[in-house]
Amino acid sequence: MNHHLYALVMAGGIGSRLWPRSRRNRPKQFLDLLTSRTLLQQTVERIEPLIPLERLLVVVSEEHADLVCEQIPGLPAENVVVEPGPRGTAPCIGLAAVLLQARDPLAIMATFPADHRVADGAGFRQAIAAAAQISGDGHLVTLGITPDQPNTGYGYIQRGAPLGEVDGLTAFRVQRFTEKPDLPTAQRFVDSGEYYWNGGIFIWQVETILGEMANLLPLLHTELQAIAKNWDSSECQETLVEAWERVPRTTIDYGVMEKSSRVAVLPVDIGWDDVGNWATLSGLVDADTEGNVVRGDGQPLLLDTSDTYLYTTRDRLVSLVGLEGFVVVDTPNALLVCPKEKAQAVREVVKELREKGLDQYL
Amino acid sequence: MNHHLYALVMAGGIGSRLWPRSRRNRPKQFLDLLTSRTLLQQTVERIEPLIPLERLLVVVSEEHADLVCEQIPGLPAENVVVEPGPRGTAPCIGLAAVLLQARDPLAIMATFPADHRVADGAGFRQAIAAAAQISGDGHLVTLGITPDQPNTGYGYIQRGAPLGEVDGLTAFRVQRFTEKPDLPTAQRFVDSGEYYWNGGIFIWQVETILGEMANLLPLLHTELQAIAKNWDSSECQETLVEAWERVPRTTIDYGVMEKSSRVAVLPVDIGWDDVGNWATLSGLVDADTEGNVVRGDGQPLLLDTSDTYLYTTRDRLVSLVGLEGFVVVDTPNALLVCPKEKAQAVREVVKELREKGLDQYL
Repeated sequence: MNHHLYALVMAGGIGSRLWPRSRRNRPKQFLDLLTSRTLLQQTVERIEPLIPLERLLVVVSEEHADLVCEQIPGLPAENVVVEPGPRGTAPCIGLAAVLLQARDPLAIMATFPADHRVADGAGFRQAIAAAAQISGDGHLVTLGITPDQPNTGYGYIQRGAPLGEVDGLTAFRVQRFTEKPDLPTAQRFVDSGEYYWNGGIFIWQVETILGEMANLLPLLHTELQAIAKNWDSSECQETLVEAWERVPRTTIDYGVMEKSSRVAVLPVDIGWDDVGNWATLSGLVDADTEGNVVRGDGQPLLLDTSDTYLYTTRDRLVSLVGLEGFVVVDTPNALLVCPKEKAQAVREVVKELREKGLDQYL
Repeated sequence: MNHHLYALVMAGGIGSRLWPRSRRNRPKQFLDLLTSRTLLQQTVERIEPLIPLERLLVVVSEEHADLVCEQIPGLPAENVVVEPGPRGTAPCIGLAAVLLQARDPLAIMATFPADHRVADGAGFRQAIAAAAQISGDGHLVTLGITPDQPNTGYGYIQRGAPLGEVDGLTAFRVQRFTEKPDLPTAQRFVDSGEYYWNGGIFIWQVETILGEMANLLPLLHTELQAIAKNWDSSECQETLVEAWERVPRTTIDYGVMEKSSRVAVLPVDIGWDDVGNWATLSGLVDADTEGNVVRGDGQPLLLDTSDTYLYTTRDRLVSLVGLEGFVVVDTPNALLVCPKEKAQAVREVVKELREKGLDQYL
């Protein structure tokens, strides 16, 4: 066990494609979507055998900080970092990096979204440990998910020359990042065997990432220094909020990874999924012999129905007749009915609710 | 206006194919399914210009008698006849017939289901008046609905020789009744021009129908005489309940119309529909430019959705994404999702609820 290895779990997402279960007051990562544990709990429990809670930070918005404390009771209070507002992953990661650097200048940080699924926990931890070793040479390591289909919803990473092998895993230089390609391009990527999905899991020394931020996102780096300087002072909160107004809104992928020459990819095959929408979620849980998945506390009644995901709510009956390949999510005040192939469009519903000011359903 | 013409509105149906709006405590005929008026109210208002409420009986089960009084406030209390239990249309019609005979031995009664739709009210009344005249010759007159498609859910009536013309309408002897035929047969019937749908609207002298019951349903006739004899006595209720235990359970179609030689059909084209299921109901109300019909007090949000019927409930949002040709009925405690072409199967849901004892959803 590497005592300089820290974890950052980013719990700031909104998961709008999993509406109406994912809501403003309890987004996707705080829901028990796959098992009886929430995605955040599953994420932390997957990391914990490698990185104990003492060295695990969760960055979260103010309104969800209580949910983090409630769902991860063993997490030290100072490890819950409240972000003043969503500014993309680069400021979030930068904030965690300066805080960890203050604790341990030799810190290596592994960054994880709070809302993904990984089937092979042991393989996942083995990969993180290997990546931590590789990061010792000043690399920004990203896990490359071996694609099993030409998904157009993910970013793709093309590997370059091999960098070496650790524990049976080979890391590569990164040739190129490509954001969500069209289907023929995605198919070509998958067929080539040289491309991986960008799963948003990064491992690096805090020194390396902060150095790259100084080069590539100097404004952010300056603000982060100010925050770090005042972190233990009485002006901590004020400094953070003011700095957050000024930091550039950008993602770590766009702001650093796509531009840095220090990037490495470590290909893994760990049963990863971003639990992106109701259709993909439906494929991640056990179905009955008709291919139906039924969840929730309500009363289901399915006739002549197959390949369908149904969530029901206590004291309500949902009857589906003659459906094939559908998603039906019934919550106390909002219902979604959608064929699986339209599951990506659920984010448009959330957009419309926001535009129409129908806040009670957000 | 014929002062011997009386109306019987049969309000005992359950309308299970219109679940989950049609429920045990408020079946189809008591719901505002087509307009802001209920089907029962529409039925009565359609009849009233021809037959005033004083000469209009409603037969109903005990649990729904209050709904009748509430929805038809001008109806004299003695015109609400409570049936001890459902025994088919023959006992129901027989009961009304003996009660009317006691009031007026020359009574002509016109019998109407409470839950049908007629677009052309004036044409409907003209037909009833004509049928009343024809019934004077001892005919059991049934309105024959001119079919516009080979519907396999209705009974068909084949016309025989012409009986004569009244007010521009020609009545015919009946050659044959055929219960719900298969599709090729129904198509042949429609193509021939000799067949009509049996809409369950009958006109006859009470003397004629009771005479035919004496011939064809003698057990029923005997019980009806006993009921009539005691109707104004203190044993009225007891006699009725006991007699109702013994009367044969049968329909007027099977018990009388298919066997009698006095049957006549009066073809009409009055925009009739039995409002049988959600798909047919959907076709009877105005749709928006996408072919969607949205009803109810809730909040609808339709994206990329067409040819769909949606009913929503107060304080709930229903979002439909990418649906075509669906029925979605959201009530406070039960939801139905079904493609229109499976709308007939909704009765199976009700059957299952009954079998499973899920009474709160019935």
